[in-house]
Amino acid sequence: MITPFDDNHFMKQALNEAKRAFDKDEVPIGAVVVAKGQVIARAHNLTETLNDVTAHAEMQAITAAANYLGGKYLKDCTLYVTLEPCSMCAGALFWSQISKVVFGATDPGRGYQEKGVDLHPKTIVKQGVLAKECGDLLKLFFEGKRQSK
Amino acid sequence: MITPFDDNHFMKQALNEAKRAFDKDEVPIGAVVVAKGQVIARAHNLTETLNDVTAHAEMQAITAAANYLGGKYLKDCTLYVTLEPCSMCAGALFWSQISKVVFGATDPGRGYQEKGVDLHPKTIVKQGVLAKECGDLLKLFFEGKRQSK
Repeated sequence: MITPFDDNHFMKQALNEAKRAFDKDEVPIGAVVVAKGQVIARAHNLTETLNDVTAHAEMQAITAAANYLGGKYLKDCTLYVTLEPCSMCAGALFWSQISKVVFGATDPGRGYQEKGVDLHPKTIVKQGVLAKECGDLLKLFFEGKRQSK
Repeated sequence: MITPFDDNHFMKQALNEAKRAFDKDEVPIGAVVVAKGQVIARAHNLTETLNDVTAHAEMQAITAAANYLGGKYLKDCTLYVTLEPCSMCAGALFWSQISKVVFGATDPGRGYQEKGVDLHPKTIVKQGVLAKECGDLLKLFFEGKRQSK
């Protein structure tokens, strides 16, 4: 039996969001929130466009998913995000009590794991899904930035 | 010489915001952002009203201040907040590179200090300003919640 809606499927959707950020000259990070096999929120990093350090993909996806659900807790939801969340986003995910977080590339130095920030005890974490694709897009972005200096 | 615009003065403004949250049956936490001796952003916790775990007073104040300044960094700003920031808010304050954070009551168990979350290396922290008033308002709120159960 073919199951089209696996983790790779949803991470590709998060990657599509990251590409939208790239096209806006934003650090290319994308996220989607999935509930009952359906994407209920999509977002990409908009910190430059909105002049707002809080406008990370995850933060916007959390807010949008809660808005869709009509409740602030994301207990039966999974967040797919192309890069390991930072302390801020991990803190927000903690408060949301989200069921599962799946991320692509790790973020040594800025990621929540190295910083020791806790997600909610009930939250399952899976990492490394399409990590190369997620990381390559970020590398391409920063290489472009260095060359344009 | 009398200086009316000291830390107590601005913390009182943050407390006024916390009282506005209290009146809306929100956990009473308030914040203001000050630049050049002037309040440029005011906010209070709205997590219930907005159904959004990210709607902490600090997060909204950071966004509002950046919006006022037209830039995402709060390098010459001070945040006054009635309660010690959580990991999420500390993470946001890190990204904002804010100059100074002044908070009232400490938040053992949830506050960023015990959690080991870093603010920006350039950020100065002062704590304990009107701590009793800030803490008493929270106690009053939670006592009311327990009695209404």
